[in-house]
Amino acid sequence: MNAEIIAVGSELLLGQIANTNAKFISNQLAELGINVFYHTVVGDNANRLEQAISIAEKRADLIIFSGGLGPTKDDLTKETIAKYLNEELTINQTALDSIEAYFHRLNRPMTENNRKQAVVLKDSEVLPNHHGMAPGMVYVKKDKTYILLPGPPKELEPMFQFEAKPLLAKEISGFETIKSLVLRFYGIGEAELEHRLADLLDAQTNPTIAPLASDGEVTLRITAKANSEEEADRLIANAQIPILERVGEFQYGTDDDSLASKAAELLKEKGLTIAAAESLTAGLFQSELAEIAGISSVLVGGMVTYTEQAKISQLGVPEQLIKQYGVVSKECAIAMADKVKERFGTDIGVGLTGAAGPDVHDGQPVGTVWIALSIGDEEPAAYLLKLSGLRNTNRLRAVKSAFHYLIQRLK
Amino acid sequence: MNAEIIAVGSELLLGQIANTNAKFISNQLAELGINVFYHTVVGDNANRLEQAISIAEKRADLIIFSGGLGPTKDDLTKETIAKYLNEELTINQTALDSIEAYFHRLNRPMTENNRKQAVVLKDSEVLPNHHGMAPGMVYVKKDKTYILLPGPPKELEPMFQFEAKPLLAKEISGFETIKSLVLRFYGIGEAELEHRLADLLDAQTNPTIAPLASDGEVTLRITAKANSEEEADRLIANAQIPILERVGEFQYGTDDDSLASKAAELLKEKGLTIAAAESLTAGLFQSELAEIAGISSVLVGGMVTYTEQAKISQLGVPEQLIKQYGVVSKECAIAMADKVKERFGTDIGVGLTGAAGPDVHDGQPVGTVWIALSIGDEEPAAYLLKLSGLRNTNRLRAVKSAFHYLIQRLK
Repeated sequence: MNAEIIAVGSELLLGQIANTNAKFISNQLAELGINVFYHTVVGDNANRLEQAISIAEKRADLIIFSGGLGPTKDDLTKETIAKYLNEELTINQTALDSIEAYFHRLNRPMTENNRKQAVVLKDSEVLPNHHGMAPGMVYVKKDKTYILLPGPPKELEPMFQFEAKPLLAKEISGFETIKSLVLRFYGIGEAELEHRLADLLDAQTNPTIAPLASDGEVTLRITAKANSEEEADRLIANAQIPILERVGEFQYGTDDDSLASKAAELLKEKGLTIAAAESLTAGLFQSELAEIAGISSVLVGGMVTYTEQAKISQLGVPEQLIKQYGVVSKECAIAMADKVKERFGTDIGVGLTGAAGPDVHDGQPVGTVWIALSIGDEEPAAYLLKLSGLRNTNRLRAVKSAFHYLIQRLK
Repeated sequence: MNAEIIAVGSELLLGQIANTNAKFISNQLAELGINVFYHTVVGDNANRLEQAISIAEKRADLIIFSGGLGPTKDDLTKETIAKYLNEELTINQTALDSIEAYFHRLNRPMTENNRKQAVVLKDSEVLPNHHGMAPGMVYVKKDKTYILLPGPPKELEPMFQFEAKPLLAKEISGFETIKSLVLRFYGIGEAELEHRLADLLDAQTNPTIAPLASDGEVTLRITAKANSEEEADRLIANAQIPILERVGEFQYGTDDDSLASKAAELLKEKGLTIAAAESLTAGLFQSELAEIAGISSVLVGGMVTYTEQAKISQLGVPEQLIKQYGVVSKECAIAMADKVKERFGTDIGVGLTGAAGPDVHDGQPVGTVWIALSIGDEEPAAYLLKLSGLRNTNRLRAVKSAFHYLIQRLK
């Protein structure tokens, strides 16, 4: 099965937004083994859209449209497709009820043009929109399948993933359901991970196992096709076993977890409070923790000690220690972790110091970072990073690594 | 003149990356008044690329290609275009010299396949690549213009902006040069800014003035066409005068400035040191300042006081004050700014406290934020925000506003 994705919207052609919908859908179709040969972007213009459909029909079995399902006059995707395919449009009562309920919740009158959003291609399968108003559609005519999706990514993505994709999975595989689980790894490179799993990756059929690397992290997406949810879950669980036996030590979470959210979860679970003393990262570690709602039960606070003087006079790192070892040192990182834990009265203290760049700092080359963890009465531990990125990549990587070591210690 | 952008690369069709090149080029073409009617994405496949060219030729005068100019067998854009247009390929000596110099700098031998990158369409105008190896090309045949650009955005963007765009500007306008200046505003909405400048925006011809809003900021891009750099500069300078008369109080910078970089620049200029005490933002203000290289001359450090107890025992905010006014209050923000300035011995203290969400905090609704600035011996100032975003949008907006008020006070 070959697919083409047609995105409709003049804002794309004006360069106001990038076509992230095509990226998302393509990525999802790749998981299903469906080839995408073309993406097309066309403006809010019926003639040009009609031409794009006519071209796509000659080269694709599956045509997926995004955008142009809204209430305004500019929104003309379904009208144009209906005309082109000589199909009727009809009001979908479920969709209309849902739109009316939406306005009711907002306590605003529904304007007439919003009825237009409940209009669908007759004989299409209607896809409910749980994050907006315009429903989607799957329409089959002869040997072609047309899928219509709303433009906003927060509506399109769940609709494709949870409504359209299972239908496609069934159509192409004969299976009833498709489920995915993403395993998240830190502290291992993509090449090394693939090397350790080479035979599993080579032998994959169902579930499929797809590695992806970004921002210093690696993920594995396990996707199972099955005739029941339970069967899919079982397939995924079985596929995980040999993976985790080999690289489980680097796995920190699944699906939407982040290093910060996982660390926050473990801190909350164990009822441990935390404080941090940050130099090169200058508050980024604490700020990332504070992205998690409800963090005030574990994050007490901490210090940014950017200058040497701040480390000494505010945090209480001994001047003699800095003279002897320098600020970019194991000893200084440990003192920072110990002192901030002591001052803020927390269970855990984190110390971060290093040379972010662009210049050598304290005689240490750019990318040298020391992270220290002081947990309860345990002997403090320190970790050395030698990073090779630019200033802010190094700062981000230092924070991610601090969360990584914290998770390792807590899990 | 109508344009079509053809991006070549299987990684786009697999959903590994979004087609940000089409967004960038479209945005640039919009400035020139060139209509873009279609974007097409096609994989690394000669037949399908040839079909895409044949379709584009029927509907566009200008066809811009991105990607497929590299050294590998997958890179086949110029070969396919040459074959389609029945044009010869030839080695470009300047490009070859530049590739050889590149390898020489890396102290590595140049492999034979890299010669391929110096191959260009005969009779094309070659565009130098200052950020990579593969040169670009502008090729004109009959009434069609073909522009070939490398795929990596960091090579494509400057090549388009500084090499291809001036040629296009000249071709369509008859002018020798085109220059832009971006004015950056904070603290005024897009609608209000457009309202205040309505007559200027309506009357614009040369320079053009284009507003754009994102992340709570508004920009105006002034673009002038002229026959000399000096003339373009003069046109831009003249266009700025009435704009800044009306909305200059909200302008904080130009071009690549950010609120943080502008604040850092002003602090360095005036030799003022700074410390911050952060509650809801939990270190984000300090971390954003620390993104700027060389910030250690002004950023001493500060505190994250996430809990009430940390505000009292670590920072020294009087318990009585918090009992009386609460932690989300003008009084607490001012005390935080004063205390952190005093403790860290800086010229400026910043205090940030508020209810980020999702829950009401200290009896204050989500989005209530107090920012205080304590500068030298001046009376501390406090600013109230009532934000309506989600938790992390509110935290980001609070930080941006703190930089905004700081810039207002320093400039």
